[in-house]
Amino acid sequence: MALDLQQMGKAARQASRQFARVSTDQKNAALYAIADALDSHSAEILEINAADVEAGRANGLDAALLDRLSLKGRLAGIAEDVRAVAKLPDPIGEIFDVAEMSNGLHLRKQRTPLGVLGVIYEARPNVTVDVAALALKTSNAAILRGGKETLHSNIALIKVIQEALAGCGLPAEAIQFISDTDRKYIAELLRLYEYVDMIIPRGGAGLHKFCRENSNIPVITGGIGIVHMFVDESADLDAALPVIHNAKVQRPSVCNALDTLLVHQQVAQGFIPRVIEHLSASGVSFRLDPRAQQLVTPDGDRILPAGENDWDTEWMALILGIRVVDDLDQALEHIDQHSSWHSEAILTANENHAARFVAAVDSAAVFVNASTRFNDGGQFGLGAEIAVSTQKIHARGPMGLRELTSYKWVAHGDYHVRK
Amino acid sequence: MALDLQQMGKAARQASRQFARVSTDQKNAALYAIADALDSHSAEILEINAADVEAGRANGLDAALLDRLSLKGRLAGIAEDVRAVAKLPDPIGEIFDVAEMSNGLHLRKQRTPLGVLGVIYEARPNVTVDVAALALKTSNAAILRGGKETLHSNIALIKVIQEALAGCGLPAEAIQFISDTDRKYIAELLRLYEYVDMIIPRGGAGLHKFCRENSNIPVITGGIGIVHMFVDESADLDAALPVIHNAKVQRPSVCNALDTLLVHQQVAQGFIPRVIEHLSASGVSFRLDPRAQQLVTPDGDRILPAGENDWDTEWMALILGIRVVDDLDQALEHIDQHSSWHSEAILTANENHAARFVAAVDSAAVFVNASTRFNDGGQFGLGAEIAVSTQKIHARGPMGLRELTSYKWVAHGDYHVRK
Repeated sequence: MALDLQQMGKAARQASRQFARVSTDQKNAALYAIADALDSHSAEILEINAADVEAGRANGLDAALLDRLSLKGRLAGIAEDVRAVAKLPDPIGEIFDVAEMSNGLHLRKQRTPLGVLGVIYEARPNVTVDVAALALKTSNAAILRGGKETLHSNIALIKVIQEALAGCGLPAEAIQFISDTDRKYIAELLRLYEYVDMIIPRGGAGLHKFCRENSNIPVITGGIGIVHMFVDESADLDAALPVIHNAKVQRPSVCNALDTLLVHQQVAQGFIPRVIEHLSASGVSFRLDPRAQQLVTPDGDRILPAGENDWDTEWMALILGIRVVDDLDQALEHIDQHSSWHSEAILTANENHAARFVAAVDSAAVFVNASTRFNDGGQFGLGAEIAVSTQKIHARGPMGLRELTSYKWVAHGDYHVRK
Repeated sequence: MALDLQQMGKAARQASRQFARVSTDQKNAALYAIADALDSHSAEILEINAADVEAGRANGLDAALLDRLSLKGRLAGIAEDVRAVAKLPDPIGEIFDVAEMSNGLHLRKQRTPLGVLGVIYEARPNVTVDVAALALKTSNAAILRGGKETLHSNIALIKVIQEALAGCGLPAEAIQFISDTDRKYIAELLRLYEYVDMIIPRGGAGLHKFCRENSNIPVITGGIGIVHMFVDESADLDAALPVIHNAKVQRPSVCNALDTLLVHQQVAQGFIPRVIEHLSASGVSFRLDPRAQQLVTPDGDRILPAGENDWDTEWMALILGIRVVDDLDQALEHIDQHSSWHSEAILTANENHAARFVAAVDSAAVFVNASTRFNDGGQFGLGAEIAVSTQKIHARGPMGLRELTSYKWVAHGDYHVRK
């Protein structure tokens, strides 16, 4: 049966209006109810998920993707994450920017829900629960569209969530799921301006571009990181090695992982061979610029000259580009040309260089003497994260609960008129 | 000669990168230089503007529109407004949300420019100077597209602005103007995702919709106000009359002017005739619901029954809808159905009703015992205003300097790695 996105949007808008009147206690009770329901329904959810994984295997999905689909051994942790969201402070209703105007008008801002979120994501079914929890906590309704590989897992999770909401006297339509993976429904979701306030894509560059090109709703763009680290001549090189290792190796498939290492010429000769030795032990291979090539023994498989597009590539794998630069200025120039403005770092003992780097590099997060892997809602103390934005409007970098809110101005007067 | 919007976008992006390194003193010096240049070139600007006005008159524009086109007697005030922007604090570089994580990582946010603004507006040429000043103050570049009626005035103003920028050693391309009013260039501007970070339409509902429908860049939507005021049974009715008068009459053509008055049934009989008498003296005419009609002597011209679409009309004129409601709940229901969520007010002595109204009405600005005319950047102490947003993302209500900024996260560590 064809889905009616207009009807889904209308129901989500209505639910969001009801949500705006729900208390913090009611929301938290619903979050605990969702977590408990995930626990008590775990057997059936895992059975359905196992079928999704099996179907994926039969369709030839690779091992890494199959691992991302699987909820096995993870469901209790996902329920615990929902309880963690319940424990976070409720941003809705927060008062800020309080002021009294010279005419005696009392002014404040008050944090409000955004309204309805449209969230489009790919493989991992845990996103379904994450998004539902973050939306509920911030009194936002949400329409979700997940990937086809986990369709049945997602439908099962949504059923549990909606039953828990209804059991707490909240509208089940607050969290809806597009249960048909035909891409035409993505296009329809992107045009629901009347009912949806923000589109959050979670996936690759293609998905983000598709959303931008086809939406009349503001789209939060992000998630793509061509990440640079500059090793200045004054860096503590012994301390730098584990930071580079962490940035590249800890989780190479994510957007804050290191792609290109820029090394100051003064330290390149001694340091680049050490980097290659240190990271090779973890299976990293390398793409070198001509000056870096002169410093190491070539190796047909693992140590290659950088190709034309390599500096513009988000590797998502155990591959690292290394380039020798004359100085900070040339490092900044390289970043200017190749960065996606997600996460960049400088390792230096020179405070002036650190300050110049921070001022000049216009990335969502800029690091001085720290791994780029810290660009993350949890690491930045947000408690939870719905996305990492690399655009300039609304929110930049990790988006937590507060970034899922708007505000209204509230003015109290004594029958004030404008002069 | 055809304009090359791609080239304009590229030049704006380059200029915005240079702007990011310009000091507050340099920016303020450029603002004073622009103001001085407007003064010293006033004779030639006014001559060109008079020709625009004359051409408009020949083309049959009405008196109100001709008045909006004219710079006569206004140019010195516009220059003074630019000096006022110079005196405002510079938001760029502001540090906020400073924190030290448990692992010792020092975290802060730092306010940054958005980058490049695309601003599309209609008749008034003062917008050209306003936008240039606000963009410069916030280190943003801007591409402007003004209405065809003031094309030559705008070109003259932009020339003065660009010469002043260049005279201060700043890139003239930071403020560019689309000097051809063919609408195809609006469509091209709206697709410059690579170079433009935010689209700000200033005009009617049609322009806002066109931008949303055709842009791959986030659009700030706003400016449309179907504005309600609810007179509760406990309101001080003597004090209420001047507030209603102010909201409706002071400047009926703007978006925060009152459109619909909702009156509690307990006070309607005595109060509605007083409202009509008080506002009639200022030339207001009325559209009444059936219950209100029973309270006043009909008048074929000025006191009419409300038509089907009247409750959904932004009057922009000396017309006021009046409806009797049973109570606060019915007032909230009416607002829910008809508001554009720009500005709403309650007049009441009942604190519980005020709190319920503020909580339930999800407008950009909600007023208790004050005129809706206060929904304005100047009145809210922002010092300047580029637009009034009625959407939920990025900024809501009046947008001043801070609302033209983004932020970056900056983390300082001691060679920190993520565990």
